[in-house]
Formats: sequence, structure tokens, C-alpha cells
Amino acid sequence: QRRFRIAAIPGDGIGKEVMPEGLRVLQAAAQRFGIGLDVVHMDWAHCDYYLQHGKMMPDDWKARLADVDAILFGAVGWPAAVPDHVSLWGSLLKFRREFDQYVNLRPVRLFEGVPCPLAGRRPGDIDYLVVRENTEGEYTALGGIMFEGTEREIVIQESVYSRVGADRVLRYAYELANQRERKRLTVATKSNGIAISMPWWDKRADAIGEGYPEVAVDKQHIDILSARFVLQPDRFDVVVASNLFGDILSDLGPATTGTIGLAPSANLNPDRRFPSLFEPVHGSAPDIYGQNIANPVAMIWSAALMLDFLTEGQGAGRQAHDAILAAIEAVIAEGPRTRDLGGTASTSEMGKAIADRI
Amino acid sequence: QRRFRIAAIPGDGIGKEVMPEGLRVLQAAAQRFGIGLDVVHMDWAHCDYYLQHGKMMPDDWKARLADVDAILFGAVGWPAAVPDHVSLWGSLLKFRREFDQYVNLRPVRLFEGVPCPLAGRRPGDIDYLVVRENTEGEYTALGGIMFEGTEREIVIQESVYSRVGADRVLRYAYELANQRERKRLTVATKSNGIAISMPWWDKRADAIGEGYPEVAVDKQHIDILSARFVLQPDRFDVVVASNLFGDILSDLGPATTGTIGLAPSANLNPDRRFPSLFEPVHGSAPDIYGQNIANPVAMIWSAALMLDFLTEGQGAGRQAHDAILAAIEAVIAEGPRTRDLGGTASTSEMGKAIADRI
Ligand SMILES: CC(C)[C@H](C(=O)O)[C@@H](O)C(=O)O
Ligand SMILES: CC(C)[C@H](C(=O)O)[C@@H](O)C(=O)O
Repeated sequence: QRRFRIAAIPGDGIGKEVMPEGLRVLQAAAQRFGIGLDVVHMDWAHCDYYLQHGKMMPDDWKARLADVDAILFGAVGWPAAVPDHVSLWGSLLKFRREFDQYVNLRPVRLFEGVPCPLAGRRPGDIDYLVVRENTEGEYTALGGIMFEGTEREIVIQESVYSRVGADRVLRYAYELANQRERKRLTVATKSNGIAISMPWWDKRADAIGEGYPEVAVDKQHIDILSARFVLQPDRFDVVVASNLFGDILSDLGPATTGTIGLAPSANLNPDRRFPSLFEPVHGSAPDIYGQNIANPVAMIWSAALMLDFLTEGQGAGRQAHDAILAAIEAVIAEGPRTRDLGGTASTSEMGKAIADRI
Repeated sequence: QRRFRIAAIPGDGIGKEVMPEGLRVLQAAAQRFGIGLDVVHMDWAHCDYYLQHGKMMPDDWKARLADVDAILFGAVGWPAAVPDHVSLWGSLLKFRREFDQYVNLRPVRLFEGVPCPLAGRRPGDIDYLVVRENTEGEYTALGGIMFEGTEREIVIQESVYSRVGADRVLRYAYELANQRERKRLTVATKSNGIAISMPWWDKRADAIGEGYPEVAVDKQHIDILSARFVLQPDRFDVVVASNLFGDILSDLGPATTGTIGLAPSANLNPDRRFPSLFEPVHGSAPDIYGQNIANPVAMIWSAALMLDFLTEGQGAGRQAHDAILAAIEAVIAEGPRTRDLGGTASTSEMGKAIADRI
């Protein structure tokens, strides 16, 4: 029977505190469902490494990850020491791009036991998936500054899209919507303001949509779409968006469920040519680091997404995923809970409670 | 005594229904506070005009507006007949750019009588101003498509910023924050992902900030900033953002106050070399047009912002503005209200009720 090799990269700040809890639950679920796992720990891709080596990762980082099936990632960034764009472009964004993790899948879900900031919403009212394009679009270092340092300074920032890049993530989103009960897809756009890329993106969405006559599609401009995440969250099922718009929606969505501290994410290379990466949506949170109070759910949920992805079609991974989710739900509802959820438990107490339920 | 000349451009859809109410209240306030107004009606900048003339506006549109002090604008767009990017780039976005309306000021405020979608928030908890850069940045038609129509299609979309453009809107926002009690400014950014323009934008914010030591500034990435609009709306005072980010935040903010149907906007040319333009944030709403049920408040509030801007320093405009706001507050709280607020009043009934209170 096949074993999976997992690289654990805790990164910075609370990434280092939630990682052990992710691994704890991962091991418990793997054992219970008979999934063979080997975990290798990597002590780079963090800002201390940068301060010592002048780079975020060793030059042979790809070789070091050549034989892993997936990466479990904590969080990266320590802005007081290293500017965010340096730490992130030198690690996380590099993984996403060089491992062609072109889908960033981010579930948004309201849990029993978490006070909802939206009045009158109940678990079940907010339950959708954000599918974010994860390798191109608005996130680039292309462009430049002319007349730099003078009054005449002009800045060009380029966004870059490709048909290959748009079509594959749109197709992924249509497939996903098609498998779900409601079969609804919302396509984020801003074709009324951003005049080259977005009208083109709309056309690609139409073209791919031709293959999915059963999916009900709705294009929405990012401004009104953000408003509807607040006003009508129950109308969403699968939402597909460009890199930037997906970034915004996948923080906003979790906020409407009470906290971004629970939100997981799966950076997928669906072709399985490269390892996929699983990480919390939250960052390294320097302000609370070192107190063992961070909520470990996002990390644990990310590990669950990893198991599901790894064993696709085999059943055991899906079962393990569902068992972890059930354990998360139970512990969020009944405790022990960390402070952000109104409890007093430490990171490790909450992680252990979830592992114990597997 | 000086009279002001106002161009009324209703545009499309409900723009045509709310405009008369905006004018009704405007006239009532002008009369009460002794502000001389001449209103000229312009029947272009709408999609019917486009269908007849193949363009949204007459070629001499600038000459026709040469002697107006301000434009009161309804809404534009009728996507079933004319693609949004055609109608908008041919009218509204042209005004913003060619009249150098570089500040788009959008107040966000929770009213008594409007059920708040955010649990437990009361009027006073949500009360801030979004200052949106309105002429450059992400809204461009620059860039292009290579290998168009083939599998190899590549799209470049350029965003363009200038130091002049960034500095002036940042300065406006700092000035505004500096005049307010809380003196807090939030600068929207995304310098961790968008690697050329946004780190530069951060630097310009720092540079302009040097002149305002009393303003407490906070830079926030647009993803977490959107989340905080939901989770901690009370922490905002003045928020300054690029064109795209300001667009998103100024729909999201009003959504957290229950509806985007009330939100006004002031497209300002603070230099007063060109007319400024005042319009609801909402669009032409083809789905409800023709029933006289649209909420006229956004239009009326926009007219109030216009009076304040026109008579800057004179007092009468500020008084007229405050009187209109008080009338809006009273009618929202006590009725008659339009359907979107749970009432049964028509557009004109609600508009008349507000005018009657002036
Ligand atoms: C209609 C559209 C082009 C416009 C914008 O994005 O600026 C609108 O959303 C607004 O906010 O005024
Ligand atoms: C840290 C940042 C570069 C990153 C992003 O914008 O992608 C984060 O916000 C995320 O959503 O994973």
C-alpha cells in the first residue's frame, strides 16, 4: 500500500504554533483510516532563515521537495524584520507559481458555536467555496517606475493572464459546481472598469461554461459581489475569481463567518505534477505569537483538505477529511476553545481535543 | 449674490426616477437657505442616446457643461442594450477623468431604522468616509491581447499611477482625517502581492503623512481590510484607497449598513477648475426600473454633498447639507419608506416626505 510523503514547513510566528496541532490531528486521522504518511520537517522558508542567509529558501529547495506528495505550510512573514513582499515572494508565492498550484480552494462555512457577525444567520446559511486563480493575474512584479524619485514619477503595474491559465481554473470551478447539489457558479469580474483583462475573463467564463449546461452561472462585479457576501451569503455555492479578487473574497467570506482564524486553504496542482500546498488563510500574526493562544483549526482543516486531495478517489482520504471536520465542528461547538472563540484553551489544548475526537 | 448652475443628467433606469426627487429636495433646501440655483436638464449620457447616435454623449459635451458649477447625475448603464464598459467608459468614467474629479468621496453610515446586517451594531458604530482615487490606477483600457483567439492567448492589463495623482488624493484624505475628531486614516494597500505599484503607493502614503503628525495612520492589505469592514467597522474614520480598492470598499461599506441603496458619492475636482459630479453609488437597476419603487435617498444625499461642496466656506451650503441629512434620517426612521426598507412608499412619496421636512 502506497505511503504519502508530507513536507511540514511551519514558517513564521503562529505558523510554528499551529503546525504541531495540524500534524497531531493528521497523524490521528491517518492512523484511524489506514493512510500511510511520512512527515519530513523543513526548517526554512521563514524570516529567520532570511536574516541568516539573505534568502528565504535554500537554492535547492525544489530538489528538497522533489519527492514529497504535499506540503503542509504554517504561515510566513515577519514584517518588522523582513518586508512582506520579500518574505512572501521568496517563499509562499514561489511555491504557488513554481509548483503550478493554479487552484486555491478556500471553503467558507459558518460553524455552530461561533457567533456570526451577520445578524440572524445560522450554520447552513453560509457554506460556499471560493476558487481562486493562484498563479497569474494581478500578482506580478512586472512594470516599473519612470522618473523615479521626482515629481513626475509614473508607475506601471502589469497584470498578466493567459487563456491556459484562465481556462483551467474556470474549468475546475465549473466541474466543482457541477458536482454539487445546487450547481451554482458565481464568476467575479470587473469588466465595467478594468477594460482589457476583465471583459476577456468574462468571455473565457462563457466559453468554458458551454461545456456545463447544467451549471447556473452568474457574473458579478467585485464591488457588488463583496456587498452580497454580506447581504445574501446564502446565495453562493461556488465562486471563481482571479488571483486578487479571490484573495479579497477569501478573507471577506471567512470574516462573515465570525473569524478568519478558522479558514483553510488548498493550493492545488490538480495535474499532480508538483506537490500541492495546504495552509491556513491567516498569517503569522506577530501580535499574538509566543503565547500559545492561536486557534489551530485553520491548520487542522487544511490538513484535512490535504488528505482528501492526496487519496482522491480512494475513499480513505475523504473519510479522514470528514472525520476531522466532524471533530472540528464538535470542539468548536462544545470546547475547549481558544480565546478568539471566547474560550480559555491554549493552541495545544484545542488541537489535542480535536485529535482525541478522531 | 452668486447663483450656481447645475446640470441634471438622469441617465438610465432608476436614475430617471430618483433624479426628480434629488432636484425636489435640492430646490427646497436651496430656497430655505437662500442659495441661488439654476438647473439645466441634459438628455444625453444614457443608453438610448447611444442606440440613436452610436455614442453616449454629443461631441461637444464639454462645451455644453462649460459653464456649470456641478453635475447631478443619476445612473448609467443598460447592459441588455449596450455593454457596460461601453456605456460607462463613454460617460461616467469620462466625466471623472476629463473633469479631473480625482477624489471620490463616499460616506458610509448606519441609520436608525435600517436593520443592520451586522449583529449588534447601532447607529454611530458605522460612520466613516471612503476616499477613493478616481482618475487613474487599475481602471484603464491600456494593455492588450496577444495571439488573440488562439490557445496561446496572453493578456496584459496595465494599471497606471502617477505621483501627482497619488499624492493629491492622499493629501485630501490626510486633510480630511486631520479635521475630524478621531483623526484616523486607514490606507488600503496590497503591497505583499502586487509588487510594483502597491509598495510605491505605501511609500507615497508615508511621504504625505509626514505633513500630518497628528493623524494616526494604519496601512491595511485590502483582503484583511475588507474582513475588518465586517468585523470591526467602528475602528474606521477615513479610509483612502486606489480606484479599484475604493470601488470595492465603497460597496462593501454600505452593504454593512444594510443596503447600498442609500449610499451617495461626490466625484470632486477640489481645484474647482472643472465641475464636480454627484451621484448615487447604486446603478441603474434595470430589474426594478419603471415601477417608481427605487429608494431616492442616495440621490438626495448626493445633492446634499453637492450643496456643501459648492458653497464651501459660506455656511449656507453646510447648513443645507445638514438639514437634508436630518430630513433623510427622520424619514428613514419614521417613514414613509420605500420597499427596500420594508415600507410601501413610492420613490416620489419618499422624496416628497424628505423635501417636506426641509
Ligand atoms: C459602474 C462602475 C464603472 C463604477 C465604478 O466601478 O467606478 C461604479 O461601480 C461606481 O462605484 O461608481
Ligand atoms: C500574504 C499574501 C501574499 C497572501 C495573498 O495575498 O495571496 C495571503 O493574503 C493569502 O491570501 O494567502
